[in-house]
Amino acid sequence: MLLLHLSDVDEASWAKAFAAALAPYPVVRRGDEFDPAEIRYIFVWKPGADAFAGLTNLKAVLSLGAGVDALMQHPHLPDAPIVRFVDEDLSQRMSDYVVAQVSMHHRLFTRFRADQKARRWDQFYPPSASQTSVGIMGMGVLGQDAAARLRPLGFSLRSWSRTPKRVEGVEGFAGAEQFDAFLAGTDILVNLLPLTPETAGILNMENFSKLRRGGLEGGPVIVNAARGGHQNEADIARALETGILGAASLDVFQTEPLPEDSPLWAIENCYITPHIAAISDEASGVRYFSRILEDHEAGKPLINVVDRKRGY
Amino acid sequence: MLLLHLSDVDEASWAKAFAAALAPYPVVRRGDEFDPAEIRYIFVWKPGADAFAGLTNLKAVLSLGAGVDALMQHPHLPDAPIVRFVDEDLSQRMSDYVVAQVSMHHRLFTRFRADQKARRWDQFYPPSASQTSVGIMGMGVLGQDAAARLRPLGFSLRSWSRTPKRVEGVEGFAGAEQFDAFLAGTDILVNLLPLTPETAGILNMENFSKLRRGGLEGGPVIVNAARGGHQNEADIARALETGILGAASLDVFQTEPLPEDSPLWAIENCYITPHIAAISDEASGVRYFSRILEDHEAGKPLINVVDRKRGY
Ligand SMILES: NC(=O)c1ccc[n+]([C@@H]2O[C@H](COP(=O)([O-])OP(=O)(O)OC[C@H]3O[C@@H](n4cnc5c(N)ncnc54)[C@H](OP(=O)(O)O)[C@@H]3O)[C@@H](O)[C@H]2O)c1
Ligand SMILES: NC(=O)c1ccc[n+]([C@@H]2O[C@H](COP(=O)([O-])OP(=O)(O)OC[C@H]3O[C@@H](n4cnc5c(N)ncnc54)[C@H](OP(=O)(O)O)[C@@H]3O)[C@@H](O)[C@H]2O)c1
Repeated sequence: MLLLHLSDVDEASWAKAFAAALAPYPVVRRGDEFDPAEIRYIFVWKPGADAFAGLTNLKAVLSLGAGVDALMQHPHLPDAPIVRFVDEDLSQRMSDYVVAQVSMHHRLFTRFRADQKARRWDQFYPPSASQTSVGIMGMGVLGQDAAARLRPLGFSLRSWSRTPKRVEGVEGFAGAEQFDAFLAGTDILVNLLPLTPETAGILNMENFSKLRRGGLEGGPVIVNAARGGHQNEADIARALETGILGAASLDVFQTEPLPEDSPLWAIENCYITPHIAAISDEASGVRYFSRILEDHEAGKPLINVVDRKRGY
Repeated sequence: MLLLHLSDVDEASWAKAFAAALAPYPVVRRGDEFDPAEIRYIFVWKPGADAFAGLTNLKAVLSLGAGVDALMQHPHLPDAPIVRFVDEDLSQRMSDYVVAQVSMHHRLFTRFRADQKARRWDQFYPPSASQTSVGIMGMGVLGQDAAARLRPLGFSLRSWSRTPKRVEGVEGFAGAEQFDAFLAGTDILVNLLPLTPETAGILNMENFSKLRRGGLEGGPVIVNAARGGHQNEADIARALETGILGAASLDVFQTEPLPEDSPLWAIENCYITPHIAAISDEASGVRYFSRILEDHEAGKPLINVVDRKRGY
């Protein structure tokens, strides 16, 4: 039996789609009548504190989110394997966001918009893509997709991950000891890390000041599409206002929705989107998790299982 | 002997670079002492009315510009073949511009910027690239490079040219009779046509109203990086203000510099850059034209010669 426990999304719609895809396998929701001991799989998004109570025969926790940082903090997270959502459609949308932000900053959007406001005709030529270095933090599913799409555009690419990665056309850096060298050659920093104790707060003033200066007119740029917990927003505001950063594109925030009194809203070179970089599509999600459930029932191993020690 | 006749750029610097590249072949500038009958090649940018006077032994006119529309209007243009500048670096920069504008509009920049100004957290999800159709007008050197770079990003691509073109992953339309069908499936219209009597004023209200509606939230978008003569700016202003167009990115204008009193400057969903989409690089230009001159002196045919009847 599959139990759905979703907040902030249309649980009824997901339940209907799962029931259709898995029939005759039973699908239930909170409030339905069922025996908790019969639940073998639970599909969750922002589960409440009692979400796992009584689920003594759980085979796996299925996470609608690609990131499991919040789930890992759950006070009663069961021992069962956690399967996260990995999806081509989601990766495509995330890369859409990353490419749009990176290429807009590479073409000095902030400068030309200010010129436009001042009715100023000032023919400054942006560098060509090959002269601009994009540094991707996190070279997993999303980081690799972003790299694959930025590469044909001609950007100079570098990546930073926990363990060394060899990706054609991307200069790889790994681990704490290579972090500063990675930053020192980066004009546009793209964050696609998972949120873990090691990566929390990584977008801070100390690291901003290590980015390459002189590569991009106006200063280096950050793009954060991973988690708000990665960023120190007071540092970002200060860095944008003092020119340590030339611009920032932020899709995620320490508190979401971003509070109305956040200074970020009003900073001209801060580009805010309301956590819409990439969405988990219902049709792909149902296809993906139904397949995983059926394969597992047929005795096959689970895929995309979270490593609890690493935290992602 | 090569004569340089360049306005608005650093002629002395180009002359020095050509002299170094071509030595011992003689390179001269206006004002130098030379016999006009000895000039076999002239390298021009915005040539004055008397630029070609007395050049009775001209073998070719070399044009710094990739577009030759202004040159074709010269009152005393000699009969010699016109060779235009075709350059990988220039194509790369043009594609940088096109990708940045297309992806920014695909990700609904105008909408999210307005939300930011209003401190509004409204989670609207942009379509994925494959759901957005980019229509490229002009499928020559620049149009094909832009298509090749947009394609790995996942966009649905279509093109329009004078003669039919077969390019993998791009739905081709050709000629006046297929123009409306081309527009009817286009969300983001990119203009990379040469300016000729046939293409002048093509970006007008009648054509804007033929673009696909409902594909892109806010309305269809135009991107013009070709020539100001392609656009009717009064129509663009009206289309942006009435929602016929959702946004416009313009790098070129009917009058350049764009006059201070143009209404375009102040239109929020009009994105202005001062004709900087792509620049002709001195080093590549000298390399390219020196090679052409030397090959031609050695008896080889000229390349990238303008067809005077077509006008490009
Ligand atoms: N804004 C949105 O709409 C949205 C949507 C989906 C996902 N996300 C976020 O994006 C994150 C990344 O997703 P993904 O699927 O790409 O994850 P993934 O496949 O698990 O990849 C994570 C990458 O980060 C690296 N990494 C982890 N800890 C590190 C550390 N301490 N130092 C250096 N590198 C480290 C990993 O290194 P190794 O390769 O060595 O393991 C790996 O390359 C998710 O966790 C989620 O928070 C955001
Ligand atoms: N903003 C800037 O910084 C900048 C920089 C460089 C160039 N430009 C402009 O970009 C233009 C294009 O350059 P390019 O090198 O790509 O030119 P190109 O190689 O000559 O290609 C021109 C394309 O336009 C098509 N075309 C011409 N007349 C047409 C008509 N009446 N109907 C339909 N299609 C037509 C051609 O069709 P066929 O293939 O059938 O011949 C061809 O595909 C230049 O002329 C220049 O004005 C702007």
